[in-house]
Amino acid sequence: MANFKGHALPGSFFLIVGLWWSVKYPLKYFHQKGKSSRLTHHYQRLEITEAAIRTLFSVVGMLAEQFVPDGPHLHLSHEDHWVKLSNWQHSTMYLFFGVSGVVDVLTSLLTHIPLGLDRLVMAVAAANEGFLLYHHVHHRPPLDQHIHSLLLCAVFAGAVSLTLEVILRDNIVLELFRTSLVILQGTWFWQIGFVLFPLFGAPEWDQEDDANIMFITMCFCWHYLAALCIVAVSYSLVYGFLTRVKRPGDREIIGIQKLKSDHTYQKALLSGSDED
Amino acid sequence: MANFKGHALPGSFFLIVGLWWSVKYPLKYFHQKGKSSRLTHHYQRLEITEAAIRTLFSVVGMLAEQFVPDGPHLHLSHEDHWVKLSNWQHSTMYLFFGVSGVVDVLTSLLTHIPLGLDRLVMAVAAANEGFLLYHHVHHRPPLDQHIHSLLLCAVFAGAVSLTLEVILRDNIVLELFRTSLVILQGTWFWQIGFVLFPLFGAPEWDQEDDANIMFITMCFCWHYLAALCIVAVSYSLVYGFLTRVKRPGDREIIGIQKLKSDHTYQKALLSGSDED
Amino acid sequence: MANFKGHALPGSFFLIVGLWWSVKYPLKYFHQKGKSSRLTHHYQRLEITEAAIRTLFSVVGMLAEQFVPDGPHLHLSHEDHWVKLSNWQHSTMYLFFGVSGVVDVLTSLLTHIPLGLDRLVMAVAAANEGFLLYHHVHHRPPLDQHIHSLLLCAVFAGAVSLTLEVILRDNIVLELFRTSLVILQGTWFWQIGFVLFPLFGAPEWDQEDDANIMFITMCFCWHYLAALCIVAVSYSLVYGFLTRVKRPGDREIIGIQKLKSDHTYQKALLSGSDED
Amino acid sequence: MANFKGHALPGSFFLIVGLWWSVKYPLKYFHQKGKSSRLTHHYQRLEITEAAIRTLFSVVGMLAEQFVPDGPHLHLSHEDHWVKLSNWQHSTMYLFFGVSGVVDVLTSLLTHIPLGLDRLVMAVAAANEGFLLYHHVHHRPPLDQHIHSLLLCAVFAGAVSLTLEVILRDNIVLELFRTSLVILQGTWFWQIGFVLFPLFGAPEWDQEDDANIMFITMCFCWHYLAALCIVAVSYSLVYGFLTRVKRPGDREIIGIQKLKSDHTYQKALLSGSDED
Repeated sequence: MANFKGHALPGSFFLIVGLWWSVKYPLKYFHQKGKSSRLTHHYQRLEITEAAIRTLFSVVGMLAEQFVPDGPHLHLSHEDHWVKLSNWQHSTMYLFFGVSGVVDVLTSLLTHIPLGLDRLVMAVAAANEGFLLYHHVHHRPPLDQHIHSLLLCAVFAGAVSLTLEVILRDNIVLELFRTSLVILQGTWFWQIGFVLFPLFGAPEWDQEDDANIMFITMCFCWHYLAALCIVAVSYSLVYGFLTRVKRPGDREIIGIQKLKSDHTYQKALLSGSDED
Repeated sequence: MANFKGHALPGSFFLIVGLWWSVKYPLKYFHQKGKSSRLTHHYQRLEITEAAIRTLFSVVGMLAEQFVPDGPHLHLSHEDHWVKLSNWQHSTMYLFFGVSGVVDVLTSLLTHIPLGLDRLVMAVAAANEGFLLYHHVHHRPPLDQHIHSLLLCAVFAGAVSLTLEVILRDNIVLELFRTSLVILQGTWFWQIGFVLFPLFGAPEWDQEDDANIMFITMCFCWHYLAALCIVAVSYSLVYGFLTRVKRPGDREIIGIQKLKSDHTYQKALLSGSDED
Repeated sequence: MANFKGHALPGSFFLIVGLWWSVKYPLKYFHQKGKSSRLTHHYQRLEITEAAIRTLFSVVGMLAEQFVPDGPHLHLSHEDHWVKLSNWQHSTMYLFFGVSGVVDVLTSLLTHIPLGLDRLVMAVAAANEGFLLYHHVHHRPPLDQHIHSLLLCAVFAGAVSLTLEVILRDNIVLELFRTSLVILQGTWFWQIGFVLFPLFGAPEWDQEDDANIMFITMCFCWHYLAALCIVAVSYSLVYGFLTRVKRPGDREIIGIQKLKSDHTYQKALLSGSDED
Repeated sequence: MANFKGHALPGSFFLIVGLWWSVKYPLKYFHQKGKSSRLTHHYQRLEITEAAIRTLFSVVGMLAEQFVPDGPHLHLSHEDHWVKLSNWQHSTMYLFFGVSGVVDVLTSLLTHIPLGLDRLVMAVAAANEGFLLYHHVHHRPPLDQHIHSLLLCAVFAGAVSLTLEVILRDNIVLELFRTSLVILQGTWFWQIGFVLFPLFGAPEWDQEDDANIMFITMCFCWHYLAALCIVAVSYSLVYGFLTRVKRPGDREIIGIQKLKSDHTYQKALLSGSDED
């Protein structure tokens, strides 16, 4: 949907996921979640719920793109010309994220699916979004092209970091990095919406003006800085919260978990196997 | 051969290899194939047969490109201008895959050839295919150029993943990823054939129309999704089949194999050596 | 500030940091600094001081860009057109390096911040500098564009090497590589200043002349060679100095530290954790 | 020197180094050279001799570029325009390879220089060659540009593989890959010479003809295939030779060396240190 809602919707999805991750990964990191810990069960259920919700988001997005009044309503071609291709492309992007969500659910549920496959499919979903965005923005005014192509940096950086996670699973630094990029995507989609479809009678942006393009580029950096701050803040909040509720005896459990997680890592690195 | 057959032939080759891999790698993964296992011998013979067949495919492809009625028949230049360069380029692509097949056979047969060399040469063959494709499509109509250059994504992604396998050998995630990309190539070659050379009096595609290019781009994503599904299905079928035929006592054998494969991995990582 | 000072300032900053690193990292390497060593405390204080100074540099740079006579003085837009965007972009670059400095301080001070985060944020700061530089130099004369875009090689190479250090922490080779690139940036900023804003009535450079561009390209290589020599020299000086002052008993301490640093490395590689 | 000799000289240098490596690395691999082996001393002396010869080559190249009749004779600028910039650029390429040679000598001689630094500097030398080549070929006829830019593939692939060797030292697969790329460079320099400066009254190539460019691209692939075959042949010859001269008792020594080389590897991976 080439309108404000069409950018606010994915923006909100990415934002929600990003904010949730900025809480989840620090939590997991501090708990040194291990297979045998009394917390494992909760985390596994969390993972599944999260993946299910991500899948839900994608389905909502796909339906929205298809069945908005000016949508294609599942008609692909009509009198041999294509119908609403950009809606179809958006649906495809949502579709891949939906698949990634399903794979996450399966990887958490079924122990015979190799660890790391979930990350790979998520990387594929991100790469696919970038791939379609890249071929998406020809024949648009310069500002429109530029503001969309800035997304590519966030998307492809995310894809690369996810690919690294296939091998370096449970690396907190990569997880926080990915989290910040997802938040960036979320806020940036909102930014795109406000720039291209000004609300409340705000002035139109001159889409040819070079100064606007220079400003938007810088603005993108500020968004990322904001994303980094959000991650930092919730990281500290989680730490503060945990140190408050910490009970004696956690220390050595952490020690034990550490070994386990190393072991998991080795398996993931060597043959991506998962016999837990 | 710039016609339907010229794309159907490589398409079928890639498709057959991809489908076979989507069965082989899950099998290997579940059996945790190890050097000393009662299955090793079978797997080694499998590897050799597969590599031999891939070599055969390449030879067939080379001969086809050379000796089709409108082919160069091994004449490279004639009255100082080059003869049928695009056939020659196709032959070169097949040639590299043939070499890769031969190296695979040798690596499985001869223990003094370092593990990982087979993967490297296969990566070189893929990179070479992409390299020639990239310099291949100038001065063609936009759709023709675009539909061929989409192949580059699959080809180079495959080359990168193969290069990773030089170091992270027997990583099931990378192997499934490569498998999906090979299936993608196979189906896409067929797609190219149908788009550029419509059969059965199907309507010609307008090669200048931008909507067609946008659709083809999205179509490429759908092909990849299909490839992922194929891999997922045969993965599940293999698992279902194995769990049905599993015998008691497999468990600990798996445990043993695991250590072995780690060891193999270490050797591959450290010095690519292979003394089995 | 598009003048000589505007390039001399960052040049000096990078140069100072680079020269200091070319002393620090060899020192650390030869001392095989470990957590329990009698030197750890000193090194930790060093790290914090260094990071604080880097933060200070960035603040100075930001203020300079904002409050020079022809600066924006914190006004972003005025009568709906943007004010001094290039100063704002420079401030943004400094800002990210400032954030990286702060994160370094925190990582050294607080043990619950994962090791490697400091490197990641520094990589982000470098990538951000390159990103803004890349979108910064349109609509300038060719020489101006070229001399700035040469910086991108140094900047992005630095970002990649820093990203590697997230995983391969305390790898002396990567640290020396990064050091040489920072020195290169420093000297190159000075070079840019001299070329674009000749001092003391030196002759203007013809910004359209192709020979000048060819020469500047080669000149960039010579700068890097000089940077390599500087690193080599201070590496040898540090070694000479340490061998002179070496006391008996250091040997085995080195042995001990080695194991420790390996251990740190493992932790960094596996889960980026840091419980010292 | 933009003539046949100017391409034959570097071609021969790369060819000699490549052929020598195609013997050295298999030898080293089969001997599983370890620090304590009775062969270590010989290998170390070999390394130093080789590096010295590489340095010599570079010096010869630099002098040739400077002091050929139509060379700059060390004059950089004359009446404020630059003298013979392309000769200067070639000298710079040789210079970096010379530095890499010197660093190799030092790394083999001095135990306090971290392992892997030699590889890094060699990677820098290759990257620098590619960097200058890339900015070197503007304003030339298409064929000239294309045939030079094909070199970039070999050069940058070599740089990447060398960078990998900083971390994965003594990985035979990477070493053979690098060897094949160096041989490719050697043969390709000769090819460039023959194409751009036909000898013995051979017919001129039409530098605008697209068919020539297509052919040269394919020709590049054939050169690489030839390089791969050369490496394969000398690998087999070395193996055959060693198996003939093998004495009893080598087996277990190999075993011992293996562990040692792993250890070296670990050290290289962890902190690039080298205490032998």
